[in-house]
Order: sequence, then C-alpha cells, then structure tokens
Amino acid sequence: MKYSVIGTGAIGGFYGSKLANAGFDVEFLLHSDYQYVKDNGLTVFSVDGDFQIKEPKVFSEVSQMRPADVILVGLKTVNQEVLYQLLPKILKQDTLVVLIQNGIGVEEDLFKKFPGLNIAAGLAFICAQKKSPGIVEHLCYGSINLGNFSCKDKTLFNNVLSDFLKAGIQAQEVEYYQARWKKAVWNMPFNGMTVVMNTTTDKLLKNPFTRQLIYEQMLEVISAAQSLGVKGIDNSFADKMIKTTDEMIPYSPSMKLDYDFHRPMEIYYLYSRPIFLAKKAGFEMKKLEMLEAQLKFLG
Amino acid sequence: MKYSVIGTGAIGGFYGSKLANAGFDVEFLLHSDYQYVKDNGLTVFSVDGDFQIKEPKVFSEVSQMRPADVILVGLKTVNQEVLYQLLPKILKQDTLVVLIQNGIGVEEDLFKKFPGLNIAAGLAFICAQKKSPGIVEHLCYGSINLGNFSCKDKTLFNNVLSDFLKAGIQAQEVEYYQARWKKAVWNMPFNGMTVVMNTTTDKLLKNPFTRQLIYEQMLEVISAAQSLGVKGIDNSFADKMIKTTDEMIPYSPSMKLDYDFHRPMEIYYLYSRPIFLAKKAGFEMKKLEMLEAQLKFLG
Repeated sequence: MKYSVIGTGAIGGFYGSKLANAGFDVEFLLHSDYQYVKDNGLTVFSVDGDFQIKEPKVFSEVSQMRPADVILVGLKTVNQEVLYQLLPKILKQDTLVVLIQNGIGVEEDLFKKFPGLNIAAGLAFICAQKKSPGIVEHLCYGSINLGNFSCKDKTLFNNVLSDFLKAGIQAQEVEYYQARWKKAVWNMPFNGMTVVMNTTTDKLLKNPFTRQLIYEQMLEVISAAQSLGVKGIDNSFADKMIKTTDEMIPYSPSMKLDYDFHRPMEIYYLYSRPIFLAKKAGFEMKKLEMLEAQLKFLG
Repeated sequence: MKYSVIGTGAIGGFYGSKLANAGFDVEFLLHSDYQYVKDNGLTVFSVDGDFQIKEPKVFSEVSQMRPADVILVGLKTVNQEVLYQLLPKILKQDTLVVLIQNGIGVEEDLFKKFPGLNIAAGLAFICAQKKSPGIVEHLCYGSINLGNFSCKDKTLFNNVLSDFLKAGIQAQEVEYYQARWKKAVWNMPFNGMTVVMNTTTDKLLKNPFTRQLIYEQMLEVISAAQSLGVKGIDNSFADKMIKTTDEMIPYSPSMKLDYDFHRPMEIYYLYSRPIFLAKKAGFEMKKLEMLEAQLKFLG
C-alpha cells in the first residue's frame, strides 16, 4: 500500500509520520516547507514519545509523486480548488481519498467534482500544531475515526484502518455523517468562540456565562443534526463534550491558530455549510449564525 | 424651578449646562471632577455652538445641595445603590426625578425603592462624551424624549418639557415603555457589538454579515417588545434605525467607551433585564442572549 499525504501541516504531518515511522511507504507533498523538510526530516514532539523521520519521501511537485493507493488530505478547507487540481495527478482507478479535514460537506463537494471517487472522512481527535517547518507538536489525544463516504472496496478501507492501528494510531470505523456532526458539536462552539473572544477553551468554560453559551451552542448543533435525520446524537453528548473539554489542557483550536497567524479561517465548511443545511431542513442555528457573522467580520 | 444634576458626565453635563446656559437654576453634583469644574467651569464643545458655564453651582456633597424640584440623573446604571443613597437628601414632597439612563427597568426599580416618587424616563438621543473633567464634546443630535412613569403632577412634567425647549433642547413627551423599548432597538445591538467586535457603528454596518446580524438583533428586540404588549413598534423601525445609523458619524456607543476606559459596563439594565422580561413573556432573544454572555465574559 502506498500512502500519499497532501498537506503536510500538523495533521497530515502527524499521521503521515506515524505511518512512515512504522515502516509504511509514505510520500509527502510539501510547499513552503519542502526544502527544510528535505534537509532536516520530519520531527514529532509527542506526548506519546518523540520521534523523527530522518529521510521522508518529500516532493514539492505532485507530478513527481507516484499514484497512491491511499491519499491522506491534511489541507485546510479554505481552498479546496487546490485539492481538486492536485488530486487527479496521483489518483489510480481505486485510490481511497481520506479527508482529514474539518467541517460538514467536504466529502459531498469532492464527490461532485470526482464522481465515483472512493472517499472516506477522517475525523482526527488530536491537539497538535505545526511549531515550525517540519516540526509537529502533539499535545493530547491522537485518535482518528474513519467514516466510509463512498469507498466501494471494503477491504481497502479496512486495510487503512488496520495500517493505522499497526502504526500505533487509535482508529475505528464510524458512520461518516453522524461522526461529522458529532465533531461539529465541539468544533462549532469552540473554534469560533476562542477567536471572537480571543481566549482559550478553558477560560470559556471557567466563566459561567460563556460556559452556558457554549453548552447552548452545542445543543444547537445537536438539534441541527437531528433535523437532518442524523441518529444517535442527543443532548447528553453536549454534557460529554463539556466534560471532555474540562479535562483538556487549555487549548487554542485550529481556527484560533489560523486567526492568530493571519491565515484564512475555515468559516465555510465549519459554519456556513452546516448552518445552511440545517436551515434548509427547518432548523435555525441562531447563536452559531451570530458567531458565523462575527467571524466573517473578523476574517 | 430648581434643577439638580446627579452624575455630571457627558449626559448630565450636557443637559444641565444647556439649562444653566439658558438661565435656569441648576446645581451640579460632582465627585472626582469637583475641584476642576469649580475652578474652571463647565465647557461644552457642541456641533450646535460651543458654550461655557463659567461659574456653575457645583457640589461635592449632596448634603450641601438644596432640595430640588427636578432631579436629572445622569449616573451610569452600574451602581444604582449610589443613586438610592443620594436621592433622599434632595427630595422634596413632589420632586420629579428624570432618569436619563440606559436600559429597561430603571424606573420600576427606583419606584420600588421610593414608592409614590414622581419619576420620568429621559431618553437622550445624543452623541456626546466627556473628554476630560468639565469638558463635554457634543458630536451629533441632542434631543431628549420624556416619558411619564409616575409623575402625578402633569403641570410639573410639562414645565420640564417647556424649560428644555426654552434651553434650546429638542424635547417631547413620549410613552415611557414604548420609548424605552424603541431605544433598546438601537442600544442592544450596537452597544454590545462594538465592544465584542472592538469596532465602531459604521464598520459593523459596512460589513454585510454584521449588518445583517445587527438587523436581526434589532428584530429580536422588536419581537421582545411585542411579546411584552408594547404597541407601535414594528419591523420597519429596524430599517429606520439602520438608516439613521448609516447617516451617523462613525460612533462608539457609551458601553464601548466604558469598556475602553476600563469602567464597568451597563450589562444588567441594557441586556439582562430586558432579556429576562422577554423570556418571562415567552420570547427568547437568542442572539442578544449570546451577546450578553460575551459581554459578561469581557466585563
């Protein structure tokens, strides 16, 4: 099995390096960090133990890469057009594309561009950031859930899960749409609120007023999911997410890092798309709509 | 008629100075600015023409003031307890207390403390700020609407209106509760949003997303008022308020100035009270509830 990582940031860098570290064949596509990583390798400072890929297979041009069996996409969703341009050059007949991306609707849009493509959702539960070129800091968690969106080859899908496990990555299969919405229950409140209030997850939960607000925003996501027919998410999931976050280290979600480092924020797939879908299904996410507007003011 | 001004900031300073400038008998209560104003008088830099009260009747102790026929209250609502302590010392049998204060519920709470007291709501439409001790900058508008809350002496109430007019202040009688809610239609969105987004009214309206959000927040206030039985405010009032604000100079509402100068914000009467009243009447102001929580996080 040949893996390719498109978008070697914190997420693509971490999972790709874990696989490479376990001996799997992994090619990495890099852009601005290419020369540094070619010269210095990939380093992961991880709560589970630091490690380094001294000579990763790195490329600055997708045309130099071999076609892949599995493509892990770690790109931000702010410019999916780039992904749509890169992909065809390393696709084989049955390549599985795993979108380790945030938000709702990324699989649907990719499938529309590439009808019949084997796509899986990769839902990463990880606190990680790229500290500098080629340096990933892994602070907590690290599991990844895979949801089958359109992969007809069940063996291929299961092999990816199994490779992840062999590489020491906790991985399991989930129902993709439920999993996407479950992740949104955490993502929608915390990403935007840390940006707008210029703070971290712990401070939002320590203040009783924003704690309540975050909880109500989570309930909005759950109601939205229910209105779209997603099964198996009820209000107790919000309690669970609050509890999980209480136990996390003070954390800046990816959108907060994007904002702080003046990178575009993933407003469309994280907010606009799910808000639009829920509205079409008859549910208005009023508080998250407000958060979306506040983010668009800033972004 | 003897007027007393309690709280000689931008608002109390402006209206009190206008009256004094027209020859009315006005006493001013000052705290930190007392000595400066005693030595240098009160100066109003006004779009309608600058003027100065060279020797205003100023006091640092309410006990030295004479009982007043009319008390203009220009204090912030963040500590109404101070008002409740000061008032009795200058109240006569039939004194009219005009609360030139922001929010919903100030008259009700004062009346509960002083049953039978003659109270009027003073709704100022003015862009003004205290630039330094004794210096008021008046940037736009300047009218004041008076709403009769509990004044049994209709002649006294009308005399105040008439004195205001004589002093060159546009003034008219309004129905107090409707007027309070009409003012909230502007106040609730703009005060909080300029604080949370760290911006001015014009920028919020220039951005299409926050423009829409401000409009929806205004509609929430209108629905809240309607749910409380307030007549004569419909959605077209929101359009009117947006248009008015489009025509205003870039403006920082009072709460933004309070926040910037590290003074407490008037969250209770501007947000918590109206939100609570509407909720009790069956309407949830969801976006303004969110704004309230964001302000309480900051405040």
